[in-house]
Amino acid sequence: MSVSASEQFASDNYSGVCPQAWNAMAEANRMDEPAYGEDRWTQRAADGLRALFDTDCDVYFVFNGTAANSLALAAIGQSFHSVICHELAHIETDECGGPEYASNGAKLLLGQGPNGKLTPESIEHLVTKRTDIHYPKPKAVSLTQATEVGTLYTPEELKAIRDVADRHRLSIHMDGARFANAVAALDVHPAEITWKAGVDVLCFSGTKNGLAMGEAVVFFNHDLAEDFEWRCKQAGQLASKMRFISAPWCGLLEQDVWLENARHANACAARLEAGLRDLPNVTIRYPRQANGVFVDLPETVQSALRDRGWRFYNFIGGCARLMCSWSTTEAQVDRFLADVRALLLE
Amino acid sequence: MSVSASEQFASDNYSGVCPQAWNAMAEANRMDEPAYGEDRWTQRAADGLRALFDTDCDVYFVFNGTAANSLALAAIGQSFHSVICHELAHIETDECGGPEYASNGAKLLLGQGPNGKLTPESIEHLVTKRTDIHYPKPKAVSLTQATEVGTLYTPEELKAIRDVADRHRLSIHMDGARFANAVAALDVHPAEITWKAGVDVLCFSGTKNGLAMGEAVVFFNHDLAEDFEWRCKQAGQLASKMRFISAPWCGLLEQDVWLENARHANACAARLEAGLRDLPNVTIRYPRQANGVFVDLPETVQSALRDRGWRFYNFIGGCARLMCSWSTTEAQVDRFLADVRALLLE
Amino acid sequence: MSVSASEQFASDNYSGVCPQAWNAMAEANRMDEPAYGEDRWTQRAADGLRALFDTDCDVYFVFNGTAANSLALAAIGQSFHSVICHELAHIETDECGGPEYASNGAKLLLGQGPNGKLTPESIEHLVTKRTDIHYPKPKAVSLTQATEVGTLYTPEELKAIRDVADRHRLSIHMDGARFANAVAALDVHPAEITWKAGVDVLCFSGTKNGLAMGEAVVFFNHDLAEDFEWRCKQAGQLASKMRFISAPWCGLLEQDVWLENARHANACAARLEAGLRDLPNVTIRYPRQANGVFVDLPETVQSALRDRGWRFYNFIGGCARLMCSWSTTEAQVDRFLADVRALLLE
Amino acid sequence: MSVSASEQFASDNYSGVCPQAWNAMAEANRMDEPAYGEDRWTQRAADGLRALFDTDCDVYFVFNGTAANSLALAAIGQSFHSVICHELAHIETDECGGPEYASNGAKLLLGQGPNGKLTPESIEHLVTKRTDIHYPKPKAVSLTQATEVGTLYTPEELKAIRDVADRHRLSIHMDGARFANAVAALDVHPAEITWKAGVDVLCFSGTKNGLAMGEAVVFFNHDLAEDFEWRCKQAGQLASKMRFISAPWCGLLEQDVWLENARHANACAARLEAGLRDLPNVTIRYPRQANGVFVDLPETVQSALRDRGWRFYNFIGGCARLMCSWSTTEAQVDRFLADVRALLLE
Repeated sequence: MSVSASEQFASDNYSGVCPQAWNAMAEANRMDEPAYGEDRWTQRAADGLRALFDTDCDVYFVFNGTAANSLALAAIGQSFHSVICHELAHIETDECGGPEYASNGAKLLLGQGPNGKLTPESIEHLVTKRTDIHYPKPKAVSLTQATEVGTLYTPEELKAIRDVADRHRLSIHMDGARFANAVAALDVHPAEITWKAGVDVLCFSGTKNGLAMGEAVVFFNHDLAEDFEWRCKQAGQLASKMRFISAPWCGLLEQDVWLENARHANACAARLEAGLRDLPNVTIRYPRQANGVFVDLPETVQSALRDRGWRFYNFIGGCARLMCSWSTTEAQVDRFLADVRALLLE
Repeated sequence: MSVSASEQFASDNYSGVCPQAWNAMAEANRMDEPAYGEDRWTQRAADGLRALFDTDCDVYFVFNGTAANSLALAAIGQSFHSVICHELAHIETDECGGPEYASNGAKLLLGQGPNGKLTPESIEHLVTKRTDIHYPKPKAVSLTQATEVGTLYTPEELKAIRDVADRHRLSIHMDGARFANAVAALDVHPAEITWKAGVDVLCFSGTKNGLAMGEAVVFFNHDLAEDFEWRCKQAGQLASKMRFISAPWCGLLEQDVWLENARHANACAARLEAGLRDLPNVTIRYPRQANGVFVDLPETVQSALRDRGWRFYNFIGGCARLMCSWSTTEAQVDRFLADVRALLLE
Repeated sequence: MSVSASEQFASDNYSGVCPQAWNAMAEANRMDEPAYGEDRWTQRAADGLRALFDTDCDVYFVFNGTAANSLALAAIGQSFHSVICHELAHIETDECGGPEYASNGAKLLLGQGPNGKLTPESIEHLVTKRTDIHYPKPKAVSLTQATEVGTLYTPEELKAIRDVADRHRLSIHMDGARFANAVAALDVHPAEITWKAGVDVLCFSGTKNGLAMGEAVVFFNHDLAEDFEWRCKQAGQLASKMRFISAPWCGLLEQDVWLENARHANACAARLEAGLRDLPNVTIRYPRQANGVFVDLPETVQSALRDRGWRFYNFIGGCARLMCSWSTTEAQVDRFLADVRALLLE
Repeated sequence: MSVSASEQFASDNYSGVCPQAWNAMAEANRMDEPAYGEDRWTQRAADGLRALFDTDCDVYFVFNGTAANSLALAAIGQSFHSVICHELAHIETDECGGPEYASNGAKLLLGQGPNGKLTPESIEHLVTKRTDIHYPKPKAVSLTQATEVGTLYTPEELKAIRDVADRHRLSIHMDGARFANAVAALDVHPAEITWKAGVDVLCFSGTKNGLAMGEAVVFFNHDLAEDFEWRCKQAGQLASKMRFISAPWCGLLEQDVWLENARHANACAARLEAGLRDLPNVTIRYPRQANGVFVDLPETVQSALRDRGWRFYNFIGGCARLMCSWSTTEAQVDRFLADVRALLLE
């Protein structure tokens, strides 16, 4: 089914390719180029990411987020190690065992924390509660920034997690499916919430930010990146015509398009939230901090909205998840709000 | 490094996106669409492949060829099974253990045969030489069509292999990295060299035929396709914005663009071969049947060609591998031939 | 550290080899025998198990319980499938990711139920709550009989689980680390709580019942056993001198030694429970049904018991886990009880 | 089928448990002991191996040779790495993909060399012939000592291989299925053909030397042993009643029983070879250096020997493989020779 741009808050994955990424892809299509990343665009995109993060990181491009996260985690530990993540983390709930597959069996240990954020105490508990060999040895902490419920880790929170990670020799992986939205919302330099806060490897999503596909795996810890290109190749994550992933990344990076796209999505979400917040029988479930609004609406209202053509997913407990993207428009937000108001007040 | 269209016979992977695929992609970018293949394009592309093969096959789209082959083989057997392939097969020589990884350890058993083609006798030998449990039980035969050295299995040859496969309960996988070129060269209906010849699953490459990326895994044997969508998801091969793979496939399938692209590439290779064949100190190594010419040229000539800007790979023993694609031009072929002649005769 | 037989309730794994198993092993050592299970003993042990279960099951011997469970589960599903088990199941809590490793990534879905027993409702919930491809498709239910907390599934409870399994096409795996104790305690024919109750594959522990090592994987569902001998071989679970596992199994099976061993262990646990039940500040945590007693004792008492040389493990929340085995003696039980009484009442 | 001690040269795996190992096992069965290697015997056996090798190595006990080799190799490299071994190596020919399974996909690269021994040149060739990411990066060399065809690497040969390994940063794994026989035959200190010759990890077989089961994985390179106990646990290779593996190892180590067993087996093989060497129509295929004799005998003679009750395997090309063990007797050798002579000369 096709979806008009005016009807959906289902996912930032429903959006298309933003103009700047498209133009870069078109530019890359003007002539033949070497394969497997030996082209000009891939070099330029990787350099662009190094400039963005202001450090000499190792950059690899893979096709999608499941692969980025799974391979990055596999690079951190062995099959008998474990990864600590929040119980709501995407790697636990929505990757069909991708991390377990790529690592050949590493278990995820599920931690807690309010608003979808793992606390240092929860990490500490999972590491120290058992140290016997029947329990897979924790080797990594995986954080999602912004989280699955649209909240953010502050630089201070990240540093507190780095402290506990240091005490237990854990590497930190960041699932940055909406990393751009986090940077935009926190209004910080990307370095502040990555390597300066102790993140070892970031999976930076291009797809949700406006590409057709393609994620950057950014290693701030060079040791973890050893032979990572072989890992990508073996796992079916090395694009032969790599430039069609890397050129659009150039389009995102130049002129800070990635940041503009994220700011726009965040602003749409803020507008949505503002319009919903004070309505009767409406509760904002989680603090709205990035590009998603999680809102409890009466079921009859949700159903009526769908009848009017609106698309959105339900999250645990039936609340509506409203995601905004680079392609969401203010007019769309306002139409949605008008429909909600009409349904609530009729 | 950038490569002008006039300089390379390195790989059909160096070429860009053909106009029809590009236009379909642009069309798919006009509005938001559901993710993960729930869009209109994916349905249309899968239906298009079913129409093409004139049978109700199961179709899945993945990002690249390593993934297509590895996951298809993993769907056929377990970790303790084995796959029989030619010793020159891409799955053996150039996928960095991809099939072993996806299957969690299945071994490839290497067979022989002239011109890169596995013979029934070689398959028979590998299956029957041992049947003890210390030897991984053969479960699949993998054939490459066109082969790594640019040759073709005729329908009759495929049927003879099917006979031996039937005797030993083996499934047949076809690596169709250059399947389009094979269909064009053999001038047969695609069904004739797939399901009518006993192929269980085909990995049909779109990338080498003119896409940015994206391969179709086509199961003619429905049993093997059971839950394959979960396999793709877990392995990081489910595109969230799937339409950017499937819409270009629609572009290839409609008006038989895929076949035109292949015919064009084959014709360029034939022109190359014709121009090289009778030159002194030049030997065509393998029968030129599809879009690649493997030719022994004096090393000094090869070196001089590279100095003039030509790019091509060397195959075993140092012969030049000259690959043509949809974007190769007759003028380019003629310039190359002129350069070779000049160098040989100077 | 060595442990005198009079001091430990730590584990049925601390016990040695029972006399009948030892004698069979000695008998098997009298002359050379073919390797890899081609010996007389292996055939006899497998036939003995078929006679015991009164059905034509497929029997394989592996070295330990982690392997038995992991390989049996891997035989049921693929990497992208999932296994439903109780949150207290050994495969989840104490096998260091063994099932995930053997299956190359299958997730365990954790269900609930009182007294360590999975309920049909919990299974139903886990199967039906999601059916999308981002969630690993449930393929197996794993039940532990007796459970980790020493409780039992009745034949009726097993049948109710079989019903839900049938509705959702799930296979049933039984972790029988203490299967013998369950049969003894329920006083049923082994068939009643396995194939007649819908169990597809049982991992029947010999080690905890009185062997040095060696578990039987018993497939009542022949389809699941396809090529299982290759799986064992590849996974390093095929003993070359197999008779040293299978002959002791003969020792257990003949004259129903296995059952006597289990009855003895259960009786010791019953005696322990009876002596503890009415003491002040003592609570039996779970119904004592097989060979383990889980008892809340004041921490000072636990500590004083350890000072007196008693060994036992603590379970979740600090309760003492007291396991009895074939080698536990009544005198030992009585000495322990006397010590507990003295400490509680001093 | 049962085999009388007088009839078989099939395998050192057909032999039983030697008296000293048996007695140690019986001693270990006298009382309860902590599980999972926390017992006295396991410590003593590990210390015994450290004393034997005269260095502070890390020692782990696993159930069988496939597991020992597969897990040791998995500890060296990742799934996308490769292992260089001789084309006749057991890990290639007889472990049903065990190394590929444990490593989740590492390929074996097959080298050559006369008499089953890998040459430095062959290793060099396999490492240097390709360095692209489509080729799994070599990370380990695996040597079998004694080899599959009963030959030996001298300390000098091992050092030459260490040189090439150093140049390419490869670790060296030694499959010591018949390591004891090699030490006995070379008459060297065990250190001379292991860590002093640059071996990083040795899989030292107890089974073929006189145990019921149980191999020692001995890491001379401590870095490679990191968390190896977790790897064993996850892979189903941690014996709960570990003392029944480690105590017999104590029996082998004390009084150099392992060496006596090996010397005896070697002497029997030498006697066999001496008796066969000058017979008509008999050719010794490989230099007889340890406990195996590979001999070409007329097929009619082989068949007649089998009719007389003799058991032995055939190796590639139909030659008879005659293996001696600790339990082979001189009388048995002489009876066999008499039968061969009678058959050849009749």
